[in-house]
Amino acid sequence: MLGVCYYPEHWPRERWAEDARRMRALGLTYVRIGEFAWSAIEPDPGRFTWDWLDAAIETLGEAGLKVVLGTPTATPPKWLIDQHPDILAYDIQGRPRKFGSRRHYSFSSRVYLEEARRIVTLLAQRYGPNPFVAGWQTDNEYGCHDTTRSYGPEDLRAFRLWLQARYGSIEALNQAWGNVFWSMTYRAFGEIDLPNQTVTEANPAHWLDFYRFSSDQVAAFNRMQAEILRQYAPEKFIVHNFMGYTPDFDHFKLAQDLDIAGWDSYPLGFTDMDVLPCTAEEKLRYAHTGHPDMAAFHHDLYRGVKPRWWVMEQQPGPVNWAHHNPSPAPGMVRLWTWEALAHGAEVVSYFRWRQFPQAQEQFHAGLNRPDFEPDLGFFEAQQVAQELSRLSLPQSSPAPVALVFDYEADWVFRIQPQGQEFVYRDLVWHFYQALRSLGLDVDVVPPGADLHPYRLVVVPSLPILRKAALQAFKEAPGAVVFGPRTGSKTEALGIPAQLPPGALQALLPLKVTRVESWRPGLSETLTWQGQSWPVGVWKEWIESSLTPVATFADGRGAIYQHHHRHYLAFWPGREFLQSYLAEVAQSLGLPIQPLPEGLRMRRRGPWVFAFNYTDRPQTAPTPQGARFVLGGPTVAPYDLSIWVEE
Amino acid sequence: MLGVCYYPEHWPRERWAEDARRMRALGLTYVRIGEFAWSAIEPDPGRFTWDWLDAAIETLGEAGLKVVLGTPTATPPKWLIDQHPDILAYDIQGRPRKFGSRRHYSFSSRVYLEEARRIVTLLAQRYGPNPFVAGWQTDNEYGCHDTTRSYGPEDLRAFRLWLQARYGSIEALNQAWGNVFWSMTYRAFGEIDLPNQTVTEANPAHWLDFYRFSSDQVAAFNRMQAEILRQYAPEKFIVHNFMGYTPDFDHFKLAQDLDIAGWDSYPLGFTDMDVLPCTAEEKLRYAHTGHPDMAAFHHDLYRGVKPRWWVMEQQPGPVNWAHHNPSPAPGMVRLWTWEALAHGAEVVSYFRWRQFPQAQEQFHAGLNRPDFEPDLGFFEAQQVAQELSRLSLPQSSPAPVALVFDYEADWVFRIQPQGQEFVYRDLVWHFYQALRSLGLDVDVVPPGADLHPYRLVVVPSLPILRKAALQAFKEAPGAVVFGPRTGSKTEALGIPAQLPPGALQALLPLKVTRVESWRPGLSETLTWQGQSWPVGVWKEWIESSLTPVATFADGRGAIYQHHHRHYLAFWPGREFLQSYLAEVAQSLGLPIQPLPEGLRMRRRGPWVFAFNYTDRPQTAPTPQGARFVLGGPTVAPYDLSIWVEE
Amino acid sequence: MLGVCYYPEHWPRERWAEDARRMRALGLTYVRIGEFAWSAIEPDPGRFTWDWLDAAIETLGEAGLKVVLGTPTATPPKWLIDQHPDILAYDIQGRPRKFGSRRHYSFSSRVYLEEARRIVTLLAQRYGPNPFVAGWQTDNEYGCHDTTRSYGPEDLRAFRLWLQARYGSIEALNQAWGNVFWSMTYRAFGEIDLPNQTVTEANPAHWLDFYRFSSDQVAAFNRMQAEILRQYAPEKFIVHNFMGYTPDFDHFKLAQDLDIAGWDSYPLGFTDMDVLPCTAEEKLRYAHTGHPDMAAFHHDLYRGVKPRWWVMEQQPGPVNWAHHNPSPAPGMVRLWTWEALAHGAEVVSYFRWRQFPQAQEQFHAGLNRPDFEPDLGFFEAQQVAQELSRLSLPQSSPAPVALVFDYEADWVFRIQPQGQEFVYRDLVWHFYQALRSLGLDVDVVPPGADLHPYRLVVVPSLPILRKAALQAFKEAPGAVVFGPRTGSKTEALGIPAQLPPGALQALLPLKVTRVESWRPGLSETLTWQGQSWPVGVWKEWIESSLTPVATFADGRGAIYQHHHRHYLAFWPGREFLQSYLAEVAQSLGLPIQPLPEGLRMRRRGPWVFAFNYTDRPQTAPTPQGARFVLGGPTVAPYDLSIWVEE
Ligand SMILES: [Zn+2]
Ligand SMILES: [Zn+2]
Ligand SMILES: [Zn+2]
Repeated sequence: MLGVCYYPEHWPRERWAEDARRMRALGLTYVRIGEFAWSAIEPDPGRFTWDWLDAAIETLGEAGLKVVLGTPTATPPKWLIDQHPDILAYDIQGRPRKFGSRRHYSFSSRVYLEEARRIVTLLAQRYGPNPFVAGWQTDNEYGCHDTTRSYGPEDLRAFRLWLQARYGSIEALNQAWGNVFWSMTYRAFGEIDLPNQTVTEANPAHWLDFYRFSSDQVAAFNRMQAEILRQYAPEKFIVHNFMGYTPDFDHFKLAQDLDIAGWDSYPLGFTDMDVLPCTAEEKLRYAHTGHPDMAAFHHDLYRGVKPRWWVMEQQPGPVNWAHHNPSPAPGMVRLWTWEALAHGAEVVSYFRWRQFPQAQEQFHAGLNRPDFEPDLGFFEAQQVAQELSRLSLPQSSPAPVALVFDYEADWVFRIQPQGQEFVYRDLVWHFYQALRSLGLDVDVVPPGADLHPYRLVVVPSLPILRKAALQAFKEAPGAVVFGPRTGSKTEALGIPAQLPPGALQALLPLKVTRVESWRPGLSETLTWQGQSWPVGVWKEWIESSLTPVATFADGRGAIYQHHHRHYLAFWPGREFLQSYLAEVAQSLGLPIQPLPEGLRMRRRGPWVFAFNYTDRPQTAPTPQGARFVLGGPTVAPYDLSIWVEE
Repeated sequence: MLGVCYYPEHWPRERWAEDARRMRALGLTYVRIGEFAWSAIEPDPGRFTWDWLDAAIETLGEAGLKVVLGTPTATPPKWLIDQHPDILAYDIQGRPRKFGSRRHYSFSSRVYLEEARRIVTLLAQRYGPNPFVAGWQTDNEYGCHDTTRSYGPEDLRAFRLWLQARYGSIEALNQAWGNVFWSMTYRAFGEIDLPNQTVTEANPAHWLDFYRFSSDQVAAFNRMQAEILRQYAPEKFIVHNFMGYTPDFDHFKLAQDLDIAGWDSYPLGFTDMDVLPCTAEEKLRYAHTGHPDMAAFHHDLYRGVKPRWWVMEQQPGPVNWAHHNPSPAPGMVRLWTWEALAHGAEVVSYFRWRQFPQAQEQFHAGLNRPDFEPDLGFFEAQQVAQELSRLSLPQSSPAPVALVFDYEADWVFRIQPQGQEFVYRDLVWHFYQALRSLGLDVDVVPPGADLHPYRLVVVPSLPILRKAALQAFKEAPGAVVFGPRTGSKTEALGIPAQLPPGALQALLPLKVTRVESWRPGLSETLTWQGQSWPVGVWKEWIESSLTPVATFADGRGAIYQHHHRHYLAFWPGREFLQSYLAEVAQSLGLPIQPLPEGLRMRRRGPWVFAFNYTDRPQTAPTPQGARFVLGGPTVAPYDLSIWVEE
Repeated sequence: MLGVCYYPEHWPRERWAEDARRMRALGLTYVRIGEFAWSAIEPDPGRFTWDWLDAAIETLGEAGLKVVLGTPTATPPKWLIDQHPDILAYDIQGRPRKFGSRRHYSFSSRVYLEEARRIVTLLAQRYGPNPFVAGWQTDNEYGCHDTTRSYGPEDLRAFRLWLQARYGSIEALNQAWGNVFWSMTYRAFGEIDLPNQTVTEANPAHWLDFYRFSSDQVAAFNRMQAEILRQYAPEKFIVHNFMGYTPDFDHFKLAQDLDIAGWDSYPLGFTDMDVLPCTAEEKLRYAHTGHPDMAAFHHDLYRGVKPRWWVMEQQPGPVNWAHHNPSPAPGMVRLWTWEALAHGAEVVSYFRWRQFPQAQEQFHAGLNRPDFEPDLGFFEAQQVAQELSRLSLPQSSPAPVALVFDYEADWVFRIQPQGQEFVYRDLVWHFYQALRSLGLDVDVVPPGADLHPYRLVVVPSLPILRKAALQAFKEAPGAVVFGPRTGSKTEALGIPAQLPPGALQALLPLKVTRVESWRPGLSETLTWQGQSWPVGVWKEWIESSLTPVATFADGRGAIYQHHHRHYLAFWPGREFLQSYLAEVAQSLGLPIQPLPEGLRMRRRGPWVFAFNYTDRPQTAPTPQGARFVLGGPTVAPYDLSIWVEE
């Protein structure tokens, strides 16, 4: 199904009905509204102007659209900030982050928690029973603009309480953090500061707990809203629109209070801005299409966050916020929409109905231009709507491959990279791209997820290996490939007593006795099955009774395999992983389909999709005599084909 | 005429007479003094030591020199700052900018306005009638060291008043800024903050008004001084010494209160520091000469700011403040002086008489060395003085080409570049260099200037197109070439209802329906008259009934011409503009003279100048049998020739 | 002798005896403890837990180890900071640098001075008489983490007092700084601010005095500790562990209060982090060994700081704090140890006994792994210990070459580079590498040191030339090679009245009339003895009656020689210096031995050492029939040979 984001408060009331009619005519089902409308609803403290919102919902609903109503907590009004400056977040340098844009609040502000509770309650009470309101969106893009972590007095207060709850006694905390190290021993929780602005680096355990705390605060804020909505709108779904790779809070945890995970898909901006890192050459090649794995990774990630998932905001044309904002190649808006559906999206919702010719996002295209004419994206959305009306999408089925993704891992390596280039995001991205270029569908799952369904599991790295995750690995029937530094840290971010990979030694009899990080340009040759690969960034020294599967030039083992479990004792590049994972897949009898540059496949039930991200026609990797649902054996530039896997 | 900057307070009184004598002997007419002397004049609050200044003026005047007396407001003394810390400006991070160098005041400080008024009044009363004081300089280099914009409490207060005066009602402001967008609606002017330190970008309309306000504050500060000087020194001229490209305030507006625009010409420092951007190769090639269009652009700009103009500070040797400070090639001090005169300067004044061997600028050469010997620049100034004494400079005549320059355009694109490389300064620079390399003289004029005199008008971009400017374009009899984004914004920085180029559509029937910005390396081919050009940075999609003059590779129009008006729907490079403007000029019968690298021409009345910025002799592009006023048909390295256009 | 750094407070008390036994068995003599243990000693204000420290010292001492006891002033406990937040240092932006790591104090905090005095006194009283305590270390790594200079209220207060003491009257200060320049004249010392956060650059004389003040504060802090230790532990030595190139305070001055200069040698981290700058290629080539002159330079520097010197912390494996942390090549821990001994170290002490698996340095290897097994460095230390037990090291003898090193020079050029690339450290490094690659041993000495012992003296630059230094140059019997800008500044950082090189003109009849700084890529050709060298960065224009030894392409003199004194009027590169200094040495009959890349020599008495920093065997540059003490004529990769010079 398709939807759109709409801001009735931006447009004259007399245009709403016409807008609603045209949305339906276009084939849209859902319309999201209201998420930035606090000051339009409550222009003065306690004075409410519900009438326009009543009317807007009625107008949209009467036209046959289902409304997703946003809570407006991402944009508290100025009068509220002036009453309570302690709502503001503080940056890492200790300065308040001022009013004048959005997301100007700390998740730990006590007064803001109450104010958010107040406005959400009022909205939920009023619109909970409204039949046109199909569901609710909480807030907007949690964590965007680096807003998960805040460094103000309210944050310090809440952090101390969080630590007290976690550790019980200050002695336990001192012990866990190793505070004896530099006379950092505390006598009471009230002595603990935030870890920013220290002379040299703060204790990494201090940082990690601050990151965990910050993540928990986001989840608690969302839970507060969800509980109110459950109370007053018990039948309606709750969704949040997550952003592109924003690892500062644990989305898996937060989503426990949601029904649907939404996410905001801007493939061109994400490619320009390295949301997932692209090479200089890829940034040029895919400037008008986005990197072919960019949206897909996020689709798979957010499907892992919640089985029901939407694209809540789909880029419909050029945007305003990247360093460079090219136009999507003709066809890409349709392609991106179909790709989301192929990965299992329930709804794809375009952002936004009409370009608003003022304020911060005036250069952000919509389905309609500011002169009220349809923009190019409109026609591509229309084509998808028409195609969808002719077709009946099959149910999604699980992928054969799981990628274990861990938000905490991102924090651990950000805090303690030990080598500048050791970035968790990049490591995950290598594995993901390698798998996708082999034509494999991938489920992204959290540590501890049930791994029984999968023939192949990849774990780019999981430094803190908890019991549930270990148990899942133990039970996993498929091959499991562990990346470097898995099991290398205790929960308190120390080195395990038995050395890395810690508890994983139960599954893989090996010990990491030394690690090295290398500057770019420094590499060693790894030899595997007679082939040589240059390896850089990271190397581990292994003691093991196992015979290594691959060795470094100095004779040390680089890859170890024990039964169906593999350990990579180095930073694996994408090309290496393509070869290695192909070999592993083949040894399992898992069919792979190496794809040419810019072509990607994905299955949804019996349907097989091929997406062409290039400006040249490509041959769809179909079996003989495939039956096509859409397109044909040749996939035109920026186009797709769908056939049925018999 | 020639002049020099002199600091009697730096030297023993007994040396002044000898210095004055040597200035006259060198052939100097003007001597600027006093602009940093506040603490020498008023060492304690209310205690004045006029005697030394009386004596200095008398000594210089008696020697036959005309004094330009600076108001010392760029350097308030420490005791004043200690009495009134609210004088200090605040940086964009909200921190006071401390005493210890210069320009340590906010233009919005109420107390500083009063203190500046006090000291200027005292000076004007005392020296207004002095026959040796020929004129006055207000302050020093407004805006230098990023001092136009300040972010403190005094600034906030003044900004709110300015907004109130501009908008009358808060509703009008909310409407103009589109504050409904992210619940940014204000209920009163007192709720508005400065636009710095917001969580993500502030409303661009908020920024633009803050930039306009900041510019107005500079002009108001200068006007306050000018009014006092007009009152007590009604016969004397008023000048200010502007800096190299400092677009933060509108010089055209400020200069309404001046008689003469001065500017400070440091070609080597400006080339090293990208005051106008030079390629890496140009920075090396012109390290000892300055880029050949660097000084010229500023001469033409400041002649546009005020018909009477001076070079108030002319670089006489190596300076101290660039990242690298090479020596001028032998002859360059003379060449720069002559070039200023060729562009119409009334006076060229060297900075400074003698290198001061202490404090911040001790590595800044003067005409004399700190050991009291003449430095190399002395002899070059002497040669110019001797040449001038033999010659009688003709009157300047208007150029055939106008370049419309707009300070507000700089602000608009700085606030909303939409693509990182879209920098107004660079665009202007491309047009200027292209015209100058064709041997064309250029007048830089503000929007709304009378364009009747010009056969060719170039408008690199004019995003906010006001009525007067539109009217001038309508009436312009010559060809007009508009660059991209002209007419693309409303006065409130929104998108015009009829889409860009807004009101310009009355002259050019076309509509910009989409814009793209591209990262370096991304380009498309433009074809014009059978020739291909790679185009990057910026592309516009045009709807028009016109047949394009040039097209992009995708078939879209890139250049449109309607009668004598041209529109470039892309970011034009310097090389392309050279070809295109040559073609336009030729179609108008406007003679061009493509010049070799490093050679530049300029006319002053019937005199034609050729300047050789290279280390090789060059042939002057003279007609047959030209009569030479200076030099001859071969221009030596770092030398010039002058001949008479018959 | 060998030693180790140990932290009994990190480990269970029951392990101490075993640790001590193994240290002795390894062949260690010294063990440094206690320097971060304040909160372990005084967990609450005034409550002391001496027992563990008593026991630790006793256990180590009974095992036969000599204890070096650290004063714990680098890590004041949190309770002390909470009582006295004015202990904290302030960064250059004026923000307090918070608790949570180490070195979180200002040297100018009055209360901290008292608190440091209190804890040091208590320690000195208690352990001064302890027979197992052989000596004391003051604090830890003064200046590390940019902690020499602080910008808070306590610093301002102390700076004003320091200035008052230095200048006596405010008029003298105004005169010395040239404050008349921009109305910076002060009326009282209480008007002077710190030089940070000014609008544009502050007066360089203001900065230089602030740098001098900051250096003096470190020395005073150390002196306070030393005086207490002398009082209560009169028989014991006092050492401090300096860091790699940390020029912010004058080590020569501080060391007047020490008996031994210790320094902390981390060749790999220093190479990765440009502690002394390495080319991109060198960083790769020497990633596993460290640059072959990196440790050596520091050995020679700290031997100059104090004739008795130790390596207090020797890198034993990968560390945690560089951007990249590779493993030392096998053999390097032994090689580094021997190299320190070759340069004259009294003791080499490894950091640390055992890797601590928590807190900030958990990735910093020790001699033992966190699982209590010996790490690789253990075995290399063991080998050295065994070798040492067989051999009797001869006494060091002075080197034939002196390099005059000046901390103040670093400050002067940092404050006033005049060209971005003019970095004192780099210039010194060029000279040092050139000399070492010629096989020459070098003594690093302060200005004013007796130069009679040296056949060749190099002075990379000495901008402020005081009487003692000039006198030493006058008396120096050997050749003296002066680099650019020597003698170019007065003590108040002005230009000398007679122009540079100021007082040096007494020895070298020449005058610098102009200086130029050039951007990278800009160069001129220097011709010397028929050979051409490209010269960049810096050029001086010389007036002299001397005939230059080498000239620039423009005919100006580049090198001048007067008797046995040489002046280089440009920025000399390492390659040029290799040739030039070789020539100078040969003309003196000083034997040189040009060494292949990665091979280095050093003499200790009659022993000659060759160190191979490469992965290839190299031929030792031995005379015929040399007698080997260790190794042989071929030096294996990462190995050394020692032979006797007959
Ligand atoms: Zn969004
Ligand atoms: Zn100036
Ligand atoms: Zn250390």
